[in-house]
Amino acid sequence: IKNNNKEPLTLWLIRAFAEQVFASETKDETVRDEISMFDVAEDCPIIHHEMNNNNKKNHCITLLFNSKKRSRTMAVPTVASQAAATPVVSVEVDTPTYLEVPDFQRVAVIGDYAAGVTMDDFELACRGLYRALTIREKYMRLAFQRFPRTASQYLRQIEGESFRPEEQLEPVFTSPPKEGEDPFDVKNLPKNLGYVARMKDGVIYVYNDAAAADKHKPKDTPYPDLNTFIDDMNFLIALIAQGPTTEIHLISKKVKKNPHRDFYNCRKVDTHIHAAACMNQKHLLRFIKKSYRVDAERVVHNLKGKEVTMKELFQSLNLHPYDLTVDSLDVHAGRQTFQRFDKFNAKYNPVGASELRDLYLKTENHINGEYFATIIKEVANDLEEAKYQYAEPRLSIYGCNANEWNKLSNWFVRHRVYSPNLKWMIQVPRIYDIFRGRNFVPHFGKMLENIFLPVFQATIDPQSSPELSIFLKHVTGFDSVDDESKHSGHMFSTKSPKPEEWDIAKNPSYTYYIYYMYANIAALNQLRKQRGMNTFMFRPHCGEAGAITHLLAAFMTADNISHGLNLKKSPVLQYLYVLSQIPIAMSPLSNNSLFLEYAKNPLLEFHKKGLVVSLSTDDPMQFHYTKEPLMEEYAIAAQVFKLSTCDMCEIARNSVLQSALSDEEKRHFLGKDYLKEGPEGNDIRKTNVPQIRMAYRYETLCYELNLIKEGLKSE
Amino acid sequence: IKNNNKEPLTLWLIRAFAEQVFASETKDETVRDEISMFDVAEDCPIIHHEMNNNNKKNHCITLLFNSKKRSRTMAVPTVASQAAATPVVSVEVDTPTYLEVPDFQRVAVIGDYAAGVTMDDFELACRGLYRALTIREKYMRLAFQRFPRTASQYLRQIEGESFRPEEQLEPVFTSPPKEGEDPFDVKNLPKNLGYVARMKDGVIYVYNDAAAADKHKPKDTPYPDLNTFIDDMNFLIALIAQGPTTEIHLISKKVKKNPHRDFYNCRKVDTHIHAAACMNQKHLLRFIKKSYRVDAERVVHNLKGKEVTMKELFQSLNLHPYDLTVDSLDVHAGRQTFQRFDKFNAKYNPVGASELRDLYLKTENHINGEYFATIIKEVANDLEEAKYQYAEPRLSIYGCNANEWNKLSNWFVRHRVYSPNLKWMIQVPRIYDIFRGRNFVPHFGKMLENIFLPVFQATIDPQSSPELSIFLKHVTGFDSVDDESKHSGHMFSTKSPKPEEWDIAKNPSYTYYIYYMYANIAALNQLRKQRGMNTFMFRPHCGEAGAITHLLAAFMTADNISHGLNLKKSPVLQYLYVLSQIPIAMSPLSNNSLFLEYAKNPLLEFHKKGLVVSLSTDDPMQFHYTKEPLMEEYAIAAQVFKLSTCDMCEIARNSVLQSALSDEEKRHFLGKDYLKEGPEGNDIRKTNVPQIRMAYRYETLCYELNLIKEGLKSE
Repeated sequence: IKNNNKEPLTLWLIRAFAEQVFASETKDETVRDEISMFDVAEDCPIIHHEMNNNNKKNHCITLLFNSKKRSRTMAVPTVASQAAATPVVSVEVDTPTYLEVPDFQRVAVIGDYAAGVTMDDFELACRGLYRALTIREKYMRLAFQRFPRTASQYLRQIEGESFRPEEQLEPVFTSPPKEGEDPFDVKNLPKNLGYVARMKDGVIYVYNDAAAADKHKPKDTPYPDLNTFIDDMNFLIALIAQGPTTEIHLISKKVKKNPHRDFYNCRKVDTHIHAAACMNQKHLLRFIKKSYRVDAERVVHNLKGKEVTMKELFQSLNLHPYDLTVDSLDVHAGRQTFQRFDKFNAKYNPVGASELRDLYLKTENHINGEYFATIIKEVANDLEEAKYQYAEPRLSIYGCNANEWNKLSNWFVRHRVYSPNLKWMIQVPRIYDIFRGRNFVPHFGKMLENIFLPVFQATIDPQSSPELSIFLKHVTGFDSVDDESKHSGHMFSTKSPKPEEWDIAKNPSYTYYIYYMYANIAALNQLRKQRGMNTFMFRPHCGEAGAITHLLAAFMTADNISHGLNLKKSPVLQYLYVLSQIPIAMSPLSNNSLFLEYAKNPLLEFHKKGLVVSLSTDDPMQFHYTKEPLMEEYAIAAQVFKLSTCDMCEIARNSVLQSALSDEEKRHFLGKDYLKEGPEGNDIRKTNVPQIRMAYRYETLCYELNLIKEGLKSE
Repeated sequence: IKNNNKEPLTLWLIRAFAEQVFASETKDETVRDEISMFDVAEDCPIIHHEMNNNNKKNHCITLLFNSKKRSRTMAVPTVASQAAATPVVSVEVDTPTYLEVPDFQRVAVIGDYAAGVTMDDFELACRGLYRALTIREKYMRLAFQRFPRTASQYLRQIEGESFRPEEQLEPVFTSPPKEGEDPFDVKNLPKNLGYVARMKDGVIYVYNDAAAADKHKPKDTPYPDLNTFIDDMNFLIALIAQGPTTEIHLISKKVKKNPHRDFYNCRKVDTHIHAAACMNQKHLLRFIKKSYRVDAERVVHNLKGKEVTMKELFQSLNLHPYDLTVDSLDVHAGRQTFQRFDKFNAKYNPVGASELRDLYLKTENHINGEYFATIIKEVANDLEEAKYQYAEPRLSIYGCNANEWNKLSNWFVRHRVYSPNLKWMIQVPRIYDIFRGRNFVPHFGKMLENIFLPVFQATIDPQSSPELSIFLKHVTGFDSVDDESKHSGHMFSTKSPKPEEWDIAKNPSYTYYIYYMYANIAALNQLRKQRGMNTFMFRPHCGEAGAITHLLAAFMTADNISHGLNLKKSPVLQYLYVLSQIPIAMSPLSNNSLFLEYAKNPLLEFHKKGLVVSLSTDDPMQFHYTKEPLMEEYAIAAQVFKLSTCDMCEIARNSVLQSALSDEEKRHFLGKDYLKEGPEGNDIRKTNVPQIRMAYRYETLCYELNLIKEGLKSE
C-alpha cells in the first residue's frame, strides 16, 4: 500500500490498517461460518472478566423499592474515582404521578474492576468512541434519520457547545387518514416543480432544468461524498479492530403494578416481516382451497403462452387442492434449512411450484396480484381485530427495470391494500449479479437508477404518477435484503469502480450496496422534506451472518436494522450500538431455522446490556405454527429466556419506537412525550414499563456517555 | 436387617439390598436436588459409550425410500451375531395401500458395540428384564389397564405358551352420547346389587351383605396383596440399582406426503391439564371483568359470616375489576417460581386473594361454582371450535370428608359441565399431613375411605346417588398430585403401618399412596367391569421431581404417567418404560417454570429413544401466553427441538392413544385397527404418521424384546 502523498499521513495510516484488517478477515471466505478478526473467542479473558464483573454486579445491583416515593431528581450515578456529575434531568415538582421514579438504591461496584486499563488507553478509547458517535450523528442528520437526544447532549457538552433540541431531526411519516378521509385520494397532490433528476456516480442529483443537469449544477441535496464515507469507514474499522475497550452494564429489573395495562394491551409492532410470507402456512393453505372452490373455472394463469383456468393449472401440476396439506405445501422451514439459505429460499414456492407462488404471492401476474392483495388484507384484518398489533411488511423493488414502481403502485391502489395496522417498506434484494448475468442491466448504476429515479421523479412531479405518489405516502422506508453469508470480498474504497463502471458479473460488497442506497435515500429525503412530504428510513437486514463490516456500514447509515446477531462478535460495535441506541429487530425463530439455534440467540444478552431490541417474525409462513405469529414469537422468547412482564413490555415499547408508526400514533401508544429520553419519555399508563426500569436504563446510558466526556476532559 | 426365617432366602436378600439402596438414597433428603444412587453422572462412561454408539448409528441408519413399494413382510432386523428371528408380522397381500410399508434399507452397526458385556451378565440382565415386564403385566391386568400386545407376545413365547389376543384387557370408557342422547340422562341407571362395601387395611372390599362383611368374607375382587407388591417392588429396586444393562435405539425419521391430512387436522389430546388452571390468564381476566359488568350487585360471597355482593367483595379487596390486569392477577409463573413449588401453588390465587380463587375457580362456593363451570364451558367451546383438540382436565377429590363426591357431582350435573372434547379425571392431592394436622381425619385409612367408598357404593347402587353415577360415567381415571420433591423418607414395606394405623402427622411416602390408590382402583374396576360400567385408569403425576422410586411404583401400577423427567436418571427404568410402552404426558413449559429449563428437557431424547411421549399443558393459566395453549406447547417444542412434521404427528397420535377417548373416538381418529401394534395399527390417512416411522419403531422394539427372549433361551 502506497501513500500517494495527497492524503494526510494519519488518514493513510488508518486506511492501510483497515485494508490489512479487511484482507485478513476475508482471506478464507469459502468457509461459511468464518472466524472474523473481530471475533472474540468464547474463552477470551476480557469477556470472561467482563462476565464475571457483570455477574457480580447482577448480584450487587439490587434495585429495591423504597416506600417513600419523594425523590424528584435523578443524577448519573457517581463512582468513587470520579467527580460527581451534574444532574442530567430534573423533573418539575408538579410532575404527574405516573412520572414519579421511585427511589431506589444504587450499588457501585469498585475494586479491580477497571484494572489493567491505563489512563492513556482510556483517553484514547474515549476519543475513538466520541468520533464514532459524531460520525453516526452526521449521517443520521443528512438522511432525516434518528440520533438519540441524550447522546447529542453529551456530544455538545464535550464540544463545549450547547444542545438545541429544535435541531434534532425526525423522520416524517404520513399521518393516519382522518375520519372519512380516503387514503387513496389523489386530490391535492403537490404541483410539478419542474426539476430534472439524473443519476451521476450512482447517486441521483436534482437540477433546476436540463441545462443545469448537462453542466452538472445540482440543487443542494447534500449527501456524504464517497471520500468522506470511506475515510469515516476506515476509521471505524480501525477502531473496532482494537478490541474491547469499555464495559457495558447489566440491567436489573423490577415489575410494577399499573392499572388496566398489561402486556396484552400494550401496542407491539412486527418490525420485520416480508409481505410474501406474512400469512402463516395454514392461512395460505386455506386461502388456496377457498380460491379453488370459488374460482376453479376462472382464467388465472398463462401457461407457456396459453391462458388456463385454475382447474387446468392445478391439473398441469398434477394436484387437487382438496388433497393439499401444509406438508405438501412445503413452505415451512425446518432442520433441512439450517445453515442453508438456498434451500430456505426455495421454500417460498408452494408445493415447490413457482406457478403457485406466482398466482398467490406475487403482485404481478395474470390476475394483477388480486389473490396476494386479498391474503394481505386478511392478515391486516386479523391485526385490526387483535387491536394492539401492527406490522411493517416489505414489498420488493428489484431495480431490474424502470417500470417496477408503476406496476407495484398500481397493484397497491387497484386493490386498495391499505390498513391502519400496516406500515409499508420497500426491500431491495442484493442480486445485481443475477440480473447482470442475464443481461437485464448493463451495470450496477442502472439498477440504482431503476430503484431511485422513479421516486425522485414522482417527488418532483407527483401529478405525473398519481398512483406512485399515493403509494409513496404509505411507504416508510427501504430495506436491503439477501443472504449475508455470501461474502463478495470486495473492499470498498475510493478506488472501487463507480456504479456506472461496475459492469462485471460479480456482485458488489454489502458495504457498497449500503452506501449507494443510503446516499440516494439521503438526497431523496431532503427533497421530500422540502416539499413537506414523508421521508424514508433506511432499515437494512444486517448482521444476520457474514462479516462484521456489515454492522459497521449500518452503524454509519441505518436508522435501525434487522437481526444484528453478529454484534456479539464485536464488543466495540456492540458498545457503539448501545451508546447510539440503534434499534434492532430480532427474529430468533427465523434465526433458529437458518443461522443460529434458539437457545444460543443473543437476544437476552443484548436486552440485558441495554441494546434496543424488538421482536419480529420475519416470515410467519416459514417459521410459525399458530394463528398469532407475533404473539408466538413473544411467547417463545418469554418462555426460553424467562422474560418478565417488564422485559416484554419494554421490548414491545422498543418495537413502537423502532417502527414507522406516525407521530400521532406514537403519542397515542407511548405517551405524548415519547420523543424525550429516560423516564420523562415514558408513560407507564400506556406502555406498562415501570419508571424504575426506565431510570435504570437512562442512568446507565448517561453513565457511559459521561465516562467518555470525562475521558476527553484532559484534551 | 434380620432374616425372620419365614421368607425364602432370595426374597430376604433382595429386600435387604433394596432397603440398603433406599437408605443410601434418602440419607440426605434436605438437599432438594438430591443425587440419587440411581443417577448416572453426565460423564458416566456407559452413557458416553451409548451416546457415541447412538451418534454413530444416527449417521448410519439412513432410512431411504425405495421406489419399489413391493415388500409385504417385515422381519425383526437380524444382527450378525444372532440367528435370524421369525417374522413378527406378515401382512396379507390385499392390504390397502395406506398400510404398505415402503422398503427401506437397514444398517446394522456391529463391532465393539456390545464390548465388555459377558454372556453371563447378558443372561442375568435378560432374566431381570423379563421378570420386570411380567410384574407390570400382572398389575395392569388386575386393574383393567393396558399392556402392549407385542410385549405380551414375546413374554408368552419366552414361557413357551401361545399368545391369545382375546385375553388382552382394555379399559372401558363411556361412549360419546348418540345423536339426541342426553349425557345427563338418569334413566336406565343399573339396579342396586345390595352389596356392602367396607374398607379393610386401606382397601375397600365388597361383600354380599353385612353379615359377610362382619366375617370379612369378601366377593372376588382380587387385588395384589401387600406382601406380593412389596416383594415385587424390592425386586425392581434391586434390578434398577444394578445400573444400565442394555442399549436403547435411536430413531431416524422420514416424512411422507399424505393427501388432505397434516399436523393441523390430526387429533391431539391435552393429556394433562388441571381444570382450575385450564383457561389462560387473559381468559380469566376477561371473565372476571365481564362477570363484574353483569353481576356487580349479585350476592356472591360470604365474607366473615356476612353475605356480600360482588361489588362489596371487590371493595373489601381494594380492587376495581376495570383496573385489573394480567400482571395484578399474578397467576402466571415466572423466574420466581423456578424450583419453588410453594410459590407456584400460591399463584392459583388471583391477585393473591383466596376469595377470588374461591369465587372463580372453585366448584363449591356461594354461587355453587357457577363461574368456574362457565369458564370451563368456554374453554370447551374453544376446543370444539378448534375441532381437532381435546383435553383431559383434573378435578380434585381430597378425601377430607365423605361428602365431597356428592358436592362435586352435583356441581357437574347442575351446570351440565359436559363437552364431547373433555374427558374428566379425578386428582387426589397427597396432603394427608395437612388434614391430619388440622384433625380433619383420624388416620390415613379414613382419607382413603372418603376417596373410594362413595364410588364403590354408587357402583353397587347407582340409583341411590344418580348425580354421582352420571358423573362417574364421564370420569375416566385418577391422578395423584403434589410436589414430588417433598420426600417423606418412609420406606414402604410389609412392616409399614396399615392405613388405619397411620395416625401420625407425617405424610406417607409416594409409593405408599400409589399402592393404596392402585389397589382400590383395581378392586373398583373389577366391580364396575362386572356391571358393564366404565372403568378408571390410574395416571399419576410421576417423576417430575423426587426419588426414582416414584417411577418404579408407577411402572408397577399406572396405565400411564405425567412428567416422567427423572427417567433420565435411570437407564434401566427408562428401558423398561420403552419395552412396556408406557405413555408419558410431558409438559416442558410447566417444567421450565418449575423444575427444569426448557433446553434441558429430555422430551427429544425420550422421543428419539422410543418412549411414548405426548405433549400437555399442565396449567395454561400459569404457563401459557396465547389463545391456544396446546398449540403453543407443540409450537415451542417444534421450534426448540426442531421436530419434524412426522415427529409432531407421532406425538399427537401418542396423545390420543394415551388418552381416555372412547374406543369409537379412537377408531375414528386413529383408524379402526388402532389396537394393533406396529404399522398395522396405524392409518396414515388419519394420523399422518408415515408407515416407515411406524415400522422403524416397531422393529426396534421387537429387536429389543427378541434380545431378551434370546438371552433366556439357555435357561
